[in-house]
Amino acid sequence: MTQLITDRRDIDFILYEQLDTQALLKEEKYRGFTRKSLDMMITEARNFALKELLPVCAEGDRQGVSLDNGEVKVPPCFRRPHNLYVEGAWTSLHEPEELGGQGLPPSVARAVQEFMVGANYTLVNYANFGHGTGKMIDLFGTPEQKKLFVKKLYTAQWTGGMLLTESEAGSDVGALTTEAVKNPDGTYSLTGTKIFITNGEHDLAENIISPVLARVPGAPAGTRGISIFIVPKYWVNSDGSLGERNDIWCTGIEEKMGIHGSACCTMTLGSKGRCRGFLLGEENQGMKIMFHMMNEARLNVGFQGFVHGAVSYQYALNYARERVQGKDLTGAKDAPSVPIIRHPDVRRMLMWMKAHVEGLRSFIYYTETLFAKADLACTTEECDYYKALIELFTPLVKAYSAQRGFEVTVQAMQVYGGAGYCKEYPVEQQMRDCKIASIYEGTDGIQAMDLLGRKLVADGGKAFNYFIKQVQQTIGAAKEKNGLGHMALALENASHRLAEAAAVLSKTAKSPNVKQAFAHAFPFLEAMGDVIMGWMRLWRAVVATDALAKGAKAKDQEFYLGQIKTSEFFIHAVLPCTLGKMDSIIHMCNAANEMEEAWFGN
Amino acid sequence: MTQLITDRRDIDFILYEQLDTQALLKEEKYRGFTRKSLDMMITEARNFALKELLPVCAEGDRQGVSLDNGEVKVPPCFRRPHNLYVEGAWTSLHEPEELGGQGLPPSVARAVQEFMVGANYTLVNYANFGHGTGKMIDLFGTPEQKKLFVKKLYTAQWTGGMLLTESEAGSDVGALTTEAVKNPDGTYSLTGTKIFITNGEHDLAENIISPVLARVPGAPAGTRGISIFIVPKYWVNSDGSLGERNDIWCTGIEEKMGIHGSACCTMTLGSKGRCRGFLLGEENQGMKIMFHMMNEARLNVGFQGFVHGAVSYQYALNYARERVQGKDLTGAKDAPSVPIIRHPDVRRMLMWMKAHVEGLRSFIYYTETLFAKADLACTTEECDYYKALIELFTPLVKAYSAQRGFEVTVQAMQVYGGAGYCKEYPVEQQMRDCKIASIYEGTDGIQAMDLLGRKLVADGGKAFNYFIKQVQQTIGAAKEKNGLGHMALALENASHRLAEAAAVLSKTAKSPNVKQAFAHAFPFLEAMGDVIMGWMRLWRAVVATDALAKGAKAKDQEFYLGQIKTSEFFIHAVLPCTLGKMDSIIHMCNAANEMEEAWFGN
Repeated sequence: MTQLITDRRDIDFILYEQLDTQALLKEEKYRGFTRKSLDMMITEARNFALKELLPVCAEGDRQGVSLDNGEVKVPPCFRRPHNLYVEGAWTSLHEPEELGGQGLPPSVARAVQEFMVGANYTLVNYANFGHGTGKMIDLFGTPEQKKLFVKKLYTAQWTGGMLLTESEAGSDVGALTTEAVKNPDGTYSLTGTKIFITNGEHDLAENIISPVLARVPGAPAGTRGISIFIVPKYWVNSDGSLGERNDIWCTGIEEKMGIHGSACCTMTLGSKGRCRGFLLGEENQGMKIMFHMMNEARLNVGFQGFVHGAVSYQYALNYARERVQGKDLTGAKDAPSVPIIRHPDVRRMLMWMKAHVEGLRSFIYYTETLFAKADLACTTEECDYYKALIELFTPLVKAYSAQRGFEVTVQAMQVYGGAGYCKEYPVEQQMRDCKIASIYEGTDGIQAMDLLGRKLVADGGKAFNYFIKQVQQTIGAAKEKNGLGHMALALENASHRLAEAAAVLSKTAKSPNVKQAFAHAFPFLEAMGDVIMGWMRLWRAVVATDALAKGAKAKDQEFYLGQIKTSEFFIHAVLPCTLGKMDSIIHMCNAANEMEEAWFGN
Repeated sequence: MTQLITDRRDIDFILYEQLDTQALLKEEKYRGFTRKSLDMMITEARNFALKELLPVCAEGDRQGVSLDNGEVKVPPCFRRPHNLYVEGAWTSLHEPEELGGQGLPPSVARAVQEFMVGANYTLVNYANFGHGTGKMIDLFGTPEQKKLFVKKLYTAQWTGGMLLTESEAGSDVGALTTEAVKNPDGTYSLTGTKIFITNGEHDLAENIISPVLARVPGAPAGTRGISIFIVPKYWVNSDGSLGERNDIWCTGIEEKMGIHGSACCTMTLGSKGRCRGFLLGEENQGMKIMFHMMNEARLNVGFQGFVHGAVSYQYALNYARERVQGKDLTGAKDAPSVPIIRHPDVRRMLMWMKAHVEGLRSFIYYTETLFAKADLACTTEECDYYKALIELFTPLVKAYSAQRGFEVTVQAMQVYGGAGYCKEYPVEQQMRDCKIASIYEGTDGIQAMDLLGRKLVADGGKAFNYFIKQVQQTIGAAKEKNGLGHMALALENASHRLAEAAAVLSKTAKSPNVKQAFAHAFPFLEAMGDVIMGWMRLWRAVVATDALAKGAKAKDQEFYLGQIKTSEFFIHAVLPCTLGKMDSIIHMCNAANEMEEAWFGN
């Protein structure tokens, strides 16, 4: 049977063959680790995920969360594995040991999380969620705030939240109206209502620490007048002990399509006039501070989308190998029926899934290594280079992984046929759970605007050019390998065309026809994602070709040959569609903007 | 507020401007109808759907079905509207009055059903489901069988079923093992278990008549040895009265992602050795007979997929007009926030949805008129011509509508943002309910094999050429209209490319490289569907241009201008992507077949 959750061989391929994690281990910062110790940790994660998390995944979906008098109850089956997960110190793996982490390279932390998130996303998200809040306090808090909160959040002794959205302020955060008034003791009193708050309230941790966006009286309109406050569920005294129950309450939970194990809360602050919070950083600096957390959250959501796809591919592959149905198209009429993996249309779907799942895995792990590289950079220039790439890639990791991850779950359901639509099998939950990844932390459309407006136009295309040069390096390497020339040329053509599309859109976005450009922002994000997939696939083919040339063991040979063939599939069967999409972008049809509102229909 | 369920103006446009239903009304067969009487019927359908069906749509989803001791209970809220629907004689509208229908032109029947299915698919499906069974008996039954069953099935006094699938015989129907042994009285005793039986058992009708595929002893292997039997839940005596409870029982129901109001049953036949049925037609002719019902069911499932999309577009359009969020991209910084329909990315999604929903509506209604034309044809040749087109289009109506309908529901959720993921809003149910349309009655992959194997290769491309000529006619007409030339040329280019792809795939499908062709069968189905959308959009633009030239009222002008602009969007922003897909098909990358099974991963 196929491995469950995810493909360990492929993870090892990325970490040690594509991305050279062993070079990282020579750095002072990671000296404590060896390939062997990391391998053991990933294996332990896999075992834990299979033993404790996966068995309650469907049950958590069925049980869901409930709200009783302001108290949210998570699925009862989550309690034990959550406690084991926290005790096992599986959160904040890439943070330093003194803050409760394990000091892992970020890409290796992702490998561990692939098993955890893949086995049970909503369960581990409760414990994982505190990191973003902790990080923000670590970066912007006072020494006392850091001491009180960071380690407890990193280790999930307390969990975190993220209170941005209000009913009239969703994608437009600047429209929020929650108010914060300064008290004589330096704390702030908050009043307002936030909606769609993931894990805003639950019964798994002794305290929940919520960063809240709000306005102080007289603050400027829009995002420039937003401040950020730390609002604990139970007040935290200066000695770290817990004080009184703060006036922040869950007043509603949403019934959702998926992620039923996760509480999506309406949070009411100050309904009794006694909600207190600490200011983080300076007044009116809230958006700048929140963006740090938001970027982390976006990468995590993209990762979530990818993982649902990765899990679904494993399930579908397994099913396709085991499910016997129909004759082989080229076999004898009276031959016995064959596993459906023999049928060309099933193979088409599996190849599409494999090409994207592996491509996304490479892209996400690669982006994580950029964090390590920025951190280890010797010069500011070098550091800025990596940071620029991270910023460019963030909306792509978020939206492209969510989109393609979802599409993989849909195709997995098609491989299962009728069984896939039934709750008895696991893929329908993956599909429902995955859909949210295209929506929360900024919809696909918001990510596309970020990519075009903030990442392409604002820096004059600098980061985009860094990216294109990286792609060209891989193309150059591929041209020198036997048998990869045709793929290298096809990707080169696509990357040129993408650069052309980027230039046309950027120019138009700066003109009065700005709307014309933004009507193509999301297709551009998709096209750029496809080119990134092509890049990752070509890179994989280069590594696999080298490994085969060096002589590989039989089992490894199969893996490498599969890599090259899957890259061929992506570059020759998928990328041509992207060229069509790029033609459409460059043509920049403006019909969507030319429509009068009445023309859309009655 | 936007109209709910569907767009009446657009339905009228298709019926009376694009398809010339008024010419049909001059035929003897339809003389009883006038535009006015048909209008009234559609209006009545709309009112009924809004008043009785829509209000229990979400409730039916929440309540679901239950199984208690072999009895299936439908959602209790369904009972009253179901009875009203049956009393109102809303089923089998295109059948003759003497058989319980209303003798409507099939395209007009679709218009009525758009409201009914759009308001509550799972509810009306119980009553609508009998038609297929009735039709099959009408076509292949003995005079006595016809008298006993047809009218009661058409009027939903009794409902129908369709018992094909077994756990080891899904897509491969020929593998089924249910057995039928002839009794001395001419009936047959059946033994076996069928799964995934939609509405196989429920408590809404006094009897359920299930056509069952089974084998008689000594029958040839595969599909050539399949016979079809009529198995009533309660035995039907020769005077039409009901006899004893037959030995056919629901022994399980599936928990599904969606269509919760619909019972998906495991049906066990003959567990007490007393399941009786009538043979329909001759022994071993079951597949030929069943195909009539299956084709009807496939068209209905495609229609279902389209309707979920059509409903979702109406909801999303309405939401986009009412939801205020964010500033206009070209407005002043301090201007008030605007409805999200002003944002280019939201417009891109709405245009995509509108282009496809209307295109699918035209395509489906057009296909229905082919039935009327085949029926009214003066010569066998003419009749065969229309039938060939119907056969060619059936897998497209089924799979393309299901695919694009689903994609519309997904985009509708994106327009809603976080609200779309919540059950409080209607689109998440539409999305869950729609997904099944790509799966049951033959998955997308099965439809693609049907298209390539049975519809393109088997008739040597004859029907495909008929289709291409129809497209060319529209292109010719468009070239003569002011302002449509650029669209006509773009569609001409796409249709040539499609013909090229069809030729390459057909040739390869007949060669030993058959698998290479079939790995591109589904992309080809999608590309052909896109070209059909382009055709329907261009046709609409031609009609709208003519109407504008004749001078239209202000409200109508808006509609026509919207038609032309939406066609522009489809042809210049969507069709270029299809050209890329056609490049990929023609390149015919064979990587999917070249993969060794082990290469797919561990």
